[in-house]
Amino acid sequence: MEFTLEDISDAEIARRRSLYEPLTESVRELIDAAIRTEVDDDTIREVQRTLDTAVQSLRAAQTDGPYGVRYTADLQGMPWGNAVIGLRNAIAPPVRPERQDDGTVTADFTLGSAYEGPPGCAHGGVVAMILDHILGDAGSADNVPCYTGTISVRYLRPTALGTLHAQARIVERDGRKKIVRGSISDAEGETATAEGVFIVPRSWDGPMPRRITSTEG
Amino acid sequence: MEFTLEDISDAEIARRRSLYEPLTESVRELIDAAIRTEVDDDTIREVQRTLDTAVQSLRAAQTDGPYGVRYTADLQGMPWGNAVIGLRNAIAPPVRPERQDDGTVTADFTLGSAYEGPPGCAHGGVVAMILDHILGDAGSADNVPCYTGTISVRYLRPTALGTLHAQARIVERDGRKKIVRGSISDAEGETATAEGVFIVPRSWDGPMPRRITSTEG
Repeated sequence: MEFTLEDISDAEIARRRSLYEPLTESVRELIDAAIRTEVDDDTIREVQRTLDTAVQSLRAAQTDGPYGVRYTADLQGMPWGNAVIGLRNAIAPPVRPERQDDGTVTADFTLGSAYEGPPGCAHGGVVAMILDHILGDAGSADNVPCYTGTISVRYLRPTALGTLHAQARIVERDGRKKIVRGSISDAEGETATAEGVFIVPRSWDGPMPRRITSTEG
Repeated sequence: MEFTLEDISDAEIARRRSLYEPLTESVRELIDAAIRTEVDDDTIREVQRTLDTAVQSLRAAQTDGPYGVRYTADLQGMPWGNAVIGLRNAIAPPVRPERQDDGTVTADFTLGSAYEGPPGCAHGGVVAMILDHILGDAGSADNVPCYTGTISVRYLRPTALGTLHAQARIVERDGRKKIVRGSISDAEGETATAEGVFIVPRSWDGPMPRRITSTEG
């Protein structure tokens, strides 16, 4: 696995963010509209031709493979391609995890039509995906790096699409293992809980810079 | 949860599929291109304006809320909005689960840039999401409906982006519980295994039509 260093200033990061965030938001709208549209066949075919032209424009210059995970010289993470939190990834809702003072990681986010499984509800796999990310983030909230060993999700009831809340925190440490617990809630309360076992790599021998740890996934 | 009945013929389903599948494929290309593009700022802003116009065209007539899960009069499932398998959902890779004669469910699929977590690798949450779906499908491969109680994923090593394989099957039955096991593999072998406990609803009192069961999620 290779992490990419980009030696750019905070101002340049802000500039790129203001360029890419609205583009990604437009692609998210398009994903939703393509699922829900009921316009006539000719309009759909016309829109499709427009999109193919847009793809061609964007692909005129592009990275060779996936986006990767990039850092600035002062170790500010830019996991902008990430499937759950990436600001350039339209698949990401996006979730924006926030680290609280007590080490709990929380996130408020919205899941629309694109995340549906059972009618009107989030796909159980999407619930698991988001819990995996939030638990991973919470697992490294003590600034000791770790990777996911196992994660178990218990589904209490279907999760309604709409505004949701997730939270997780380390509940136990045992040698190189950390146990992390978390949950997802909709407006009616908890819908799924999760427990993960996270492993500190043998190679680890010192504290990581704080900012690098928020980019697990 | 409400399932929607659409009384349409096989020919009409085929017609809609041939209209929506290419549109969704174009949106998938766009998601990838938006992550990887390195074109200049003006081109990006121009593309974004084009996309916003396309969204407006598609939204001129659309379903009120999410797509839902629809069935034809002969119970052919059309989970076209589904986040993992939906043919109208650009977030779906899509995975196309196939039920084998022995009850095993398998799927070959490709994950590109949009599913990245660690550099060059699938997000652990995406791995969990796909396993959740495949296990759910396998859990109802005996035509006895069930919902996911718990799912546990064990990560053996990072999953490389690219062509992947998933499989799952029921390994044990105990009253209203079914135990399902599965895994995901990349070119180098198994990267994650999963076990799920699936529960047959108390209300169940007879076999379900076979075709309805392939739409779990």
